[in-house]
Amino acid sequence: MDLERYITGDWGTSRLRLSLCLGERVLETREGPGIGALREPPAEVLHRLTAGWRDAHGPLPLVLCGMAGSRNGWREAPYVPCPADLRALREAALRFEAQGAPVTIAPGLSCQGRLGTPEVMRGEETQIAGALTLHPALGAGRHLLCLPGTHTKWAWLEDGQVRDFLTALTGELFALLRDGSTLTRAASAAAAASAGAVSADDGFERGLETAATLGKASLLHALFSVRSRQLIDGCSRDWALSYLSGLMIGTDVHGAIALFGAREPVVLIGDGALNERYALALRHEGISASSLDGEHCALAGLRTL
Amino acid sequence: MDLERYITGDWGTSRLRLSLCLGERVLETREGPGIGALREPPAEVLHRLTAGWRDAHGPLPLVLCGMAGSRNGWREAPYVPCPADLRALREAALRFEAQGAPVTIAPGLSCQGRLGTPEVMRGEETQIAGALTLHPALGAGRHLLCLPGTHTKWAWLEDGQVRDFLTALTGELFALLRDGSTLTRAASAAAAASAGAVSADDGFERGLETAATLGKASLLHALFSVRSRQLIDGCSRDWALSYLSGLMIGTDVHGAIALFGAREPVVLIGDGALNERYALALRHEGISASSLDGEHCALAGLRTL
Repeated sequence: MDLERYITGDWGTSRLRLSLCLGERVLETREGPGIGALREPPAEVLHRLTAGWRDAHGPLPLVLCGMAGSRNGWREAPYVPCPADLRALREAALRFEAQGAPVTIAPGLSCQGRLGTPEVMRGEETQIAGALTLHPALGAGRHLLCLPGTHTKWAWLEDGQVRDFLTALTGELFALLRDGSTLTRAASAAAAASAGAVSADDGFERGLETAATLGKASLLHALFSVRSRQLIDGCSRDWALSYLSGLMIGTDVHGAIALFGAREPVVLIGDGALNERYALALRHEGISASSLDGEHCALAGLRTL
Repeated sequence: MDLERYITGDWGTSRLRLSLCLGERVLETREGPGIGALREPPAEVLHRLTAGWRDAHGPLPLVLCGMAGSRNGWREAPYVPCPADLRALREAALRFEAQGAPVTIAPGLSCQGRLGTPEVMRGEETQIAGALTLHPALGAGRHLLCLPGTHTKWAWLEDGQVRDFLTALTGELFALLRDGSTLTRAASAAAAASAGAVSADDGFERGLETAATLGKASLLHALFSVRSRQLIDGCSRDWALSYLSGLMIGTDVHGAIALFGAREPVVLIGDGALNERYALALRHEGISASSLDGEHCALAGLRTL
């Protein structure tokens, strides 16, 4: 067996990202379907997608994180209760052999959330572990991390341990409202004619502003304005989508900052464009942010397992 | 022409409800598709659905409210800006002749909402007008009305005038999350096995309680618990749907009460079962409610036009 080479896989609900690695170098990457879209057993999908690499190099160790370890994944890896550090993750990882090669699946994390309800994560714990190895300064003191996405996670890091975390349905709800709601089906002749009159950037800013005025009202009470601003104010559909995004990210950031009582800079871990939107929303709250690449962190985290 | 008989139609996005009336009596009712689901021009749908009544009685006056007067409806009826009373509605109604019979389409209402965004309604103004004729006491003093539905409307009535109103996307968002989200797809073997262990009523109550603890956090931060309570606490899918309903109606009620600064009893106008859920949520806020039947109010309102 080639002990220098190994395969890592970040397997989310909507995407599988496989990498063939040699030490710290990524030699090749490959994309596959998310756990939510599988039509065959996870092990077979992996076997097929990595066949070429195994043909070239023989059996290769495989390290996975994310939904691979969920009940609907390959094999269920337990949740590690918070507070949890990297050592706990490594100890709780599920290890077994398949096709003559060692397989490691990262455990998830669980905690009792700040709203008194149970919280779970799968995949983000590995990104956080990676961020800690790439940026050792995060291992000391208190840091609020934000991992934007389908289910945005906010995690409270204290001396290298995840103390607790919170899930916001921001990305999933945005996609549902964009694709399936009446909010963006309002586009009329008038609205279409005015398309481009105001930029989509302006929509995002206006969304952040509306989110900031909510007070005790809820996102529920502001969402209809995505439609009414097209109907009455003649805003374009593109503008309305940016406005919706600003409204939702603004509401997410405002609520999370309040729940964690955080005024310190926030560490964003994720895709660059989405990090940038969250950084803008944080700036609206008077909070600065730094941005780490989510895929780099995931890879670094998988290596530590 | 039979001047005693007339047809009323409450034409919403998802449903058309036609009634053949004689004075204050409803002789017959008929259901048709909502404006959102039409595949032929609205006038033709109406013509077809009312053919039998016209065959029997000759041309009949037709009075419509709701999306019939929207840009995507039959003919666009203008919005009356708030504050607006019944007389303003009657004066702004669109009147024309079709198939040899008079047609009246109720106008909608518009206002600048309490969040600084434009608000519109179509159909609910007619229900409110009907409530005022059925319950003249509502014409004096201040009353907060709530019309639960796909788009729940909260309207502030002062001396018989609608001063302003607010839309909550409660019903539409509930349906989107129920049918299209990951929140209720979590049902595992364990959760299925425990189905019925706790009643769905309990779910609704727990949802109201969680909504009450949100504070500065948002519905966005509580929604994931619909999934995690199935995954971790083993709650059933039915329980989770009731919990989601409680979470959303609780958030709607809490925010609306705060925005209107209302402590007075609320008048619910709508379907009985949904009114009951809103009444429960209002009771959680220490506010009593009375319940009026939405269809009765719509019919009474259409008669006044």
